[in-house]
Amino acid sequence: MTKPLATHLAQIDSILQAWGMPAAQAAETADILAYADLSGIDSHGMSMLPAYNAWRREGRLNMAAIPRIVKESPVSALVDGDDGLGHVPAAFAMRTAIAKAKAVGIGVVVVRATSHFGACGYYARMATNEGLIGMVATTASGVRVPPTGGAEAKLGTDPWCFGAPGAPGRPFLLDMATTTVAYGRVRNKANEALPTPDGWILDRSGQKTTDPTAVSERGGFLTSLGGTPENSSHKGYGLAMMVDILAGGLAGMTYPTDPLHAKGSRLDLGHFVLAMDPSLFRDGADFAESVATFADQMRATRPLDPARPVMVPGDPERATAARRMIDGIPVAPGLKTQIRAIAEAANVSWLLD
Amino acid sequence: MTKPLATHLAQIDSILQAWGMPAAQAAETADILAYADLSGIDSHGMSMLPAYNAWRREGRLNMAAIPRIVKESPVSALVDGDDGLGHVPAAFAMRTAIAKAKAVGIGVVVVRATSHFGACGYYARMATNEGLIGMVATTASGVRVPPTGGAEAKLGTDPWCFGAPGAPGRPFLLDMATTTVAYGRVRNKANEALPTPDGWILDRSGQKTTDPTAVSERGGFLTSLGGTPENSSHKGYGLAMMVDILAGGLAGMTYPTDPLHAKGSRLDLGHFVLAMDPSLFRDGADFAESVATFADQMRATRPLDPARPVMVPGDPERATAARRMIDGIPVAPGLKTQIRAIAEAANVSWLLD
Repeated sequence: MTKPLATHLAQIDSILQAWGMPAAQAAETADILAYADLSGIDSHGMSMLPAYNAWRREGRLNMAAIPRIVKESPVSALVDGDDGLGHVPAAFAMRTAIAKAKAVGIGVVVVRATSHFGACGYYARMATNEGLIGMVATTASGVRVPPTGGAEAKLGTDPWCFGAPGAPGRPFLLDMATTTVAYGRVRNKANEALPTPDGWILDRSGQKTTDPTAVSERGGFLTSLGGTPENSSHKGYGLAMMVDILAGGLAGMTYPTDPLHAKGSRLDLGHFVLAMDPSLFRDGADFAESVATFADQMRATRPLDPARPVMVPGDPERATAARRMIDGIPVAPGLKTQIRAIAEAANVSWLLD
Repeated sequence: MTKPLATHLAQIDSILQAWGMPAAQAAETADILAYADLSGIDSHGMSMLPAYNAWRREGRLNMAAIPRIVKESPVSALVDGDDGLGHVPAAFAMRTAIAKAKAVGIGVVVVRATSHFGACGYYARMATNEGLIGMVATTASGVRVPPTGGAEAKLGTDPWCFGAPGAPGRPFLLDMATTTVAYGRVRNKANEALPTPDGWILDRSGQKTTDPTAVSERGGFLTSLGGTPENSSHKGYGLAMMVDILAGGLAGMTYPTDPLHAKGSRLDLGHFVLAMDPSLFRDGADFAESVATFADQMRATRPLDPARPVMVPGDPERATAARRMIDGIPVAPGLKTQIRAIAEAANVSWLLD
C-alpha cells in the first residue's frame, strides 16, 4: 500500500494544478510536501491537502499567488506572499537569504501575507546544502496551546527549525514544533482512531487526556514543550512566543492572541528565514567538519538500549527517507479516503491505488 | 538576612578585585552577577563564585583578560576573550553587535577563549534596551546531559536567550537552559539539602531520582527539555546541540562530546550573540508596540488558578527584581558559608552579615 516518491509527488502536483496553481509553483509545492512525506514528517505532507482544500474553497487562498520583495537591504528582505500557500514564498525567501549570506555573510528574510508552508526543515536544508547555517520559523493558523498557567489557547504549535552543515548529505537539522508534539501528530492519531501518549494533550478544561478527538473535535489543547509547569513548560511557551514575534510580528501579521488571527478572509501568517555563512568566523569547511565530528561523537554515545543507537537531529528523517525511497511512501487508510475524494472533486486521475 | 543590591554587588566586586581583576572589569562583572541575583536567577549570580574561585586557583582563568576583536566584517566580529571570565567579553560582544545592527541592520558576534558569563538574559536585554531583537547562547563547562536514548553525558545545560523590545522597561526576555532545569537549580537544592522535583534529573545509570547529590556528587544527569523520549526530549537535546554549534563550533572551541572539553588548562568556552533591528522589516516603534500588545493579551489569559495570573517571559525576573530592590537580596545559608570563606581567603571585608 505504498507508492514511489514520483507517483506520490505527481498526485499532489496534479491536485494543486487542478486547483489553479501555475505549473512551476505546483511542482515546487509538491516537491516540498513530498519531502515531508518521504522524510516521515507525515503531519506536514499530503495530509495537509484537506486543510488547504478547505481554505481554498472558503476563498482564503490565492492559488495564483506570486511572491515579491517589497522592502530590501543588503542583509534583509521583506517578501509579500500574495496570500497564497507558503511553500513557494518561503523557498523564494530562503534563496534570497542565501544569496545575501553569500554576498555579505548573513541574510534575514521575513514573509508576510502567507499561509502554511509544510515542514520547516526543507528550507533550513536549502541553507545547509550551501554550507550555511539556517534558521526557519513560521506562525500557525490553529490556536491550540495555552500559555503556562493558562486555561485558554493563545498560541499555535509555532515550529522552529535550525540547521548547520555537517558531513556531506548529513546536515544537522532540528525541525520542531514548540509544543510537546505537532498538532498533525495528534490529528493523524484521530484520523486513525488511536490514543495519544500521556502528556501530549489536555482537554478543554486543562486536564490530561489521551483521546486525540478532545483536541481535534472538542477544543482541547496541546501542551508546550516541557509538558508541565514544574518541568518548565514555560520554555516551550516562551519559544512559541518568540516564533510569533520573529515570524508574525516582524511581518506585521496578527499574533495568535488576536481573536481574529487566521480567522479573516486571508490566513495572514508569517515566516522568518535566516542564512549565515560560518566563514564570518572561521574556515567554512573546517566548521562543517567540526559539526560532522560532533555529530559522530554524539552517535557513538553508549545507548540505554543497545538496539536503539543514539541519533542526531536529521538522522531519523534521513533514515525514513532512505527506506521510503526503496519501499515507497505509505498513505494511511483514513487519509487515503480523504485524498481520493479531493482528487475526484478536482477531476484528476487517482494514482494511489 | 537580605542585603541591598549595592552591598551585594560590592561584596562580589571586592572579591573579584582581590582576585586580580582590573577595577572597571570587576565592576562590570559584579553588575552582571548581581543582575542575576536581583532577578531571582540565583543559580547564575553570587553562587558561581565558588566555581570561579576553583578555576582561578587551578590557573585556568586569566583574571586580567582583555577581550579584543580578531576578525571583523560589517555584520560580524570574532572576539577573543583572552581566557578570562565571560561577562566582560560577552558584554563587549553585544555592544559590538548592537553597533553593527544600528549601522547595517544586524550584527552577529562570536566569542572564543572565554568561560562562564553569568545569566544570558543580561546580554539580550542590552539589545532590547536599544529597540533591537537579541539572541544569546553559550557553551557550558559541565557535561551533565545525555542525548536522547544515551547512557552517557555528552552535553551541557547549554543555555539560549531570546529578547524582543516591548513596552518600555518590559521587554520579552526568555532566558532558558535547554535542559528541564539549569544545573545551578540542582546545585542549589544540594547546597540546601532539599530534594528535586520529579523529572529534573537521572542517576548515573539513567534512572529517575529526586536526590540532587546524584548529579552534584555521583555523576548523574540532567534531562533535556521535554524530559522523556516520548515527550520529545530530542527537542531539548537538539536545541543544546545547536547552542554548541553556534557558540562553540563557530568559535572553534571544543564541543562537549570531546573528552578534553573544559578539562584543559583553559576552559575554552564560546559565546554567540546577535542583535537585529526590526526596522529592517517594519517601523521599529510599531513593532515594539505590537510585542507589548501580544504580551498584554497573553497576560490577560484566563488562568487555571485565579491566584496565579499568566506571565510572559521576563515577567517573573522583573517581579523578583522589583521585590528585591525593596527587600534586599537573600543569600541562602549554605552559599553564605562558602562566600564567607572565599572573602576571608581573599582578605576582603565581609559585608553580608
